[in-house]
Amino acid sequence: MTFDKTYEEYLCYFNEYLDKFCNELNCTPSVLNDSLVYSLKLGGKRIRPVLMLAVADIIGTGAKKVRDFALALELIHTYSLIHDDLPDMDNDDFRRGKPSNHKVFGAGNAILAGDGLLNTAYSALFNECFKGNEYVSAAKYICDCAGVYGMIAGQSADLLHENDDVADENTLEFIYENKTGKLITAATVVPSILNGGKYYSELKALGKKLGYLFQLTDDILDVEGNFEKLGKSLGKDEQENKLTGVRVYGLENCKLRVDVTGDDCIKIIDGIDGDTSFLYGFVNFVKTRLG
Amino acid sequence: MTFDKTYEEYLCYFNEYLDKFCNELNCTPSVLNDSLVYSLKLGGKRIRPVLMLAVADIIGTGAKKVRDFALALELIHTYSLIHDDLPDMDNDDFRRGKPSNHKVFGAGNAILAGDGLLNTAYSALFNECFKGNEYVSAAKYICDCAGVYGMIAGQSADLLHENDDVADENTLEFIYENKTGKLITAATVVPSILNGGKYYSELKALGKKLGYLFQLTDDILDVEGNFEKLGKSLGKDEQENKLTGVRVYGLENCKLRVDVTGDDCIKIIDGIDGDTSFLYGFVNFVKTRLG
Repeated sequence: MTFDKTYEEYLCYFNEYLDKFCNELNCTPSVLNDSLVYSLKLGGKRIRPVLMLAVADIIGTGAKKVRDFALALELIHTYSLIHDDLPDMDNDDFRRGKPSNHKVFGAGNAILAGDGLLNTAYSALFNECFKGNEYVSAAKYICDCAGVYGMIAGQSADLLHENDDVADENTLEFIYENKTGKLITAATVVPSILNGGKYYSELKALGKKLGYLFQLTDDILDVEGNFEKLGKSLGKDEQENKLTGVRVYGLENCKLRVDVTGDDCIKIIDGIDGDTSFLYGFVNFVKTRLG
Repeated sequence: MTFDKTYEEYLCYFNEYLDKFCNELNCTPSVLNDSLVYSLKLGGKRIRPVLMLAVADIIGTGAKKVRDFALALELIHTYSLIHDDLPDMDNDDFRRGKPSNHKVFGAGNAILAGDGLLNTAYSALFNECFKGNEYVSAAKYICDCAGVYGMIAGQSADLLHENDDVADENTLEFIYENKTGKLITAATVVPSILNGGKYYSELKALGKKLGYLFQLTDDILDVEGNFEKLGKSLGKDEQENKLTGVRVYGLENCKLRVDVTGDDCIKIIDGIDGDTSFLYGFVNFVKTRLG
């Protein structure tokens, strides 16, 4: 099966599961329910859950076993986007081509929507914890990737280094690894934790590299992409003087790094047995976001 | 031992544990670490953890068994205060007599500090989940009390009914029960869950009533309290036209309800065996916040 078709199948599988989750969500007042569902249903490529489901099948864990972890990961990713878009953070009016959560519901409700998604993700993960200690390990792994030694640390560093004149590579890599890399690493590692640690170090290294690759292409697209395709405001990084790959390495060197990092990913995948064709395709998929 | 002395002992025990937690917190960048520790160390009465520790001793669970749950509950409470104080929410410049988190670190960092505390609370709770399914149940109970069917629902309703002319008793009770009552109920119920469900229904009913009592006195103090004693801005409810007990029942009826609710609490405590003198004292302590 082609990569595109397999991706589409995982995407459909996940979106159906997410739709079911959204339909069963029934909180009061209705503005709270609506604001959660609004951001969850904005669509997107769902790269984290798709990657997790695919890795789970590749290493024999099975997609079904990880689907609630994939759901939780997407809820956490979505909360982070809602809070990132707030006027006090990145101040983005658009997300996936539609108005950001706070543009529709107001900033106060958007703060609560983010908090609510984060909490709901953990409620789903606590349900999984009843199944045994490997499930607890997997849940805690996601939590730590999302937390103050993970994604939130990256967001904090990102905010801190707006408008500073330092273009420091170590700081940039800290932001890449934490803000973007950690949740993608959670996607590759959770299937391993739920399968006796199979290919743990390879999948952890792969997640980190894929995160780096993803953020590199993101930074390039902020300069070269177009709104219709990306559905979010562009040129924001320069406007807000953010610490990006483009600023630290320069645009052309960023593109060279995309190729080198893609090759690094492929070397890691070479060390994993089984039908890994989806993973090679995934690397290419991230690289070719650049068009 | 007098109530005051016992309260002080639990408070010291908890604050030492919290200090240890703060000292071990070591996240980067330092502004993130500082902003978390700042709000955790603003002090306060720590009523939720103290209540949880005391209930655990009273029903034989033992304070030590619940201390990480008490810690998580205080982290969650503190995150909710940071987000509540934001300009887009209640817009409070003071908390416990000191500048609010966003006044010191800026709103962007305060959003992340809140997110970080929430995440850290769950990381602590996942650690507990390795100990067995009753620990998972207790962790999930806290999560659900904090979430979109609990505290966040109450905050959302609170925000929604600012500036509306309806003074509806059902809506007020929804806000009281969820915004305030749920976390206090978590404090009384977790010790029961970790002890085979001992006095579960009594402790759940007690938590709900105590939450109601606490919020009633809070609403009265917003009208009649003084800044020095409370350490937060007063008269805010009327200024922001919030749906409060004072608005729905009137000030004098609120005070009558304080007495009735206190009596309800005592009736529930009468049904619990053992040395419950601390619980009677606790009811009185909440009532006499009014001075």
